[in-house]
Amino acid sequence: MTYCLAMRLRDGLVMLSDTRTNAGVDNVSNYRKLFVFHPTADRTIVLQSAGNLATTQEVLDRIDRDLDDPAAPESLATVEHLFEAALYVGRLSVEVAQRHRGALDAIGADGTSTFLVSGQVADHAPDALLVYPAGNYIRASDDRPFLQIGETKYGKFLLELATEADVTLDEAAKVALSSMISTARANLSVGPPYDLGIYRNGSHVVEHSRIATDSSFLATLEGVWLKHLRLGLDELPMVDPAETSLL
Amino acid sequence: MTYCLAMRLRDGLVMLSDTRTNAGVDNVSNYRKLFVFHPTADRTIVLQSAGNLATTQEVLDRIDRDLDDPAAPESLATVEHLFEAALYVGRLSVEVAQRHRGALDAIGADGTSTFLVSGQVADHAPDALLVYPAGNYIRASDDRPFLQIGETKYGKFLLELATEADVTLDEAAKVALSSMISTARANLSVGPPYDLGIYRNGSHVVEHSRIATDSSFLATLEGVWLKHLRLGLDELPMVDPAETSLL
Repeated sequence: MTYCLAMRLRDGLVMLSDTRTNAGVDNVSNYRKLFVFHPTADRTIVLQSAGNLATTQEVLDRIDRDLDDPAAPESLATVEHLFEAALYVGRLSVEVAQRHRGALDAIGADGTSTFLVSGQVADHAPDALLVYPAGNYIRASDDRPFLQIGETKYGKFLLELATEADVTLDEAAKVALSSMISTARANLSVGPPYDLGIYRNGSHVVEHSRIATDSSFLATLEGVWLKHLRLGLDELPMVDPAETSLL
Repeated sequence: MTYCLAMRLRDGLVMLSDTRTNAGVDNVSNYRKLFVFHPTADRTIVLQSAGNLATTQEVLDRIDRDLDDPAAPESLATVEHLFEAALYVGRLSVEVAQRHRGALDAIGADGTSTFLVSGQVADHAPDALLVYPAGNYIRASDDRPFLQIGETKYGKFLLELATEADVTLDEAAKVALSSMISTARANLSVGPPYDLGIYRNGSHVVEHSRIATDSSFLATLEGVWLKHLRLGLDELPMVDPAETSLL
């Protein structure tokens, strides 16, 4: 499994990915799932991936090959809008999955992948898009400024609670990490280290850091978070018979 | 969808079910999913259901028919252990699902159901069991004193955080309700009113109440819970560059 999320906020973008991969619980590994592309000075594109690891790796190899090939009809260096980058990634994803579909179907495996494509192209507003396995996409909105792929359910409540388009990037980063640790706590196939990217509008630089499994920051974050959940639970009212109807 | 949970604690049992049902988002309704059986003085059995509504209703009708039929080879009045009640419910569930399988397969519908069977039979220790669509079961344990069916992911973190076998029944009830409102917040197909059952060991009485959609208790619970989640988020540390490695 995997958990990746991207937020499109007033001041910029926050992207966070875990690194755990598994092909069965007896085959667990770590792979990067957050990739920064800066092929020309006027564009910064962050790719995050979930789904079949072979498909995502072949898609990334094709992206790199197109970037190295001046004759490539399309690449992350040539698209003129971020949605064109999303469609380009979607096309590669569909092509790779189709190429291997027969063989994968025969063993009951799913070869599809889902991507988050975030960033800024030229002077267009920064954006975050989710590319479905079918190659189409949706974008984040002011009403729902986050996108998730992979194991999306466990960490969704925190995003819904605390992510509004006008929170600061630093606030959003800690909400994202809280959502991540809630997910990792519930699903063994999501885990650290975590790759965090922060993009400030117009900067064309992604502040990209890796949060290690044994970092004291992560331990503090988890400790504070658990403490406050427990405090909240302690102060919840007891079930009041006067407010319920006995049946 | 549905969300039902049962906890087996030191002092007794806590059961909680939502009431929302849906056959597509354009066909949403409310049905009870928590049922108390007290067929003889020495047994109290609580059934909670998730899955195909027609299957669960037919299973309940068969349970009632068997209770009314002195010649029935097996019923909730004749089983001698709670696990036998679970196997009995599982057998009915498999029979009903199989009876309609051909017709349901033809329209791509799933006719299976999952049940929670909790309670006390005679002097045996109270217990809570989850009956799979295949008719087999698992039970709660001291290490994991809760069972969930239906939409289990959104509310799981709270149960894992705060449910230990030695919490009081009142504490457990508010944890259960917190888990429920987190789930209802995330999934439209889970919703109030909620049916809460509390069983104290040896009592053979289920304190059974319904918490209405518009109850002030529910509003207070949600308000306190959201306030404390926000407070917790406020006090989380910011991402500290000294504790992460820039890439």
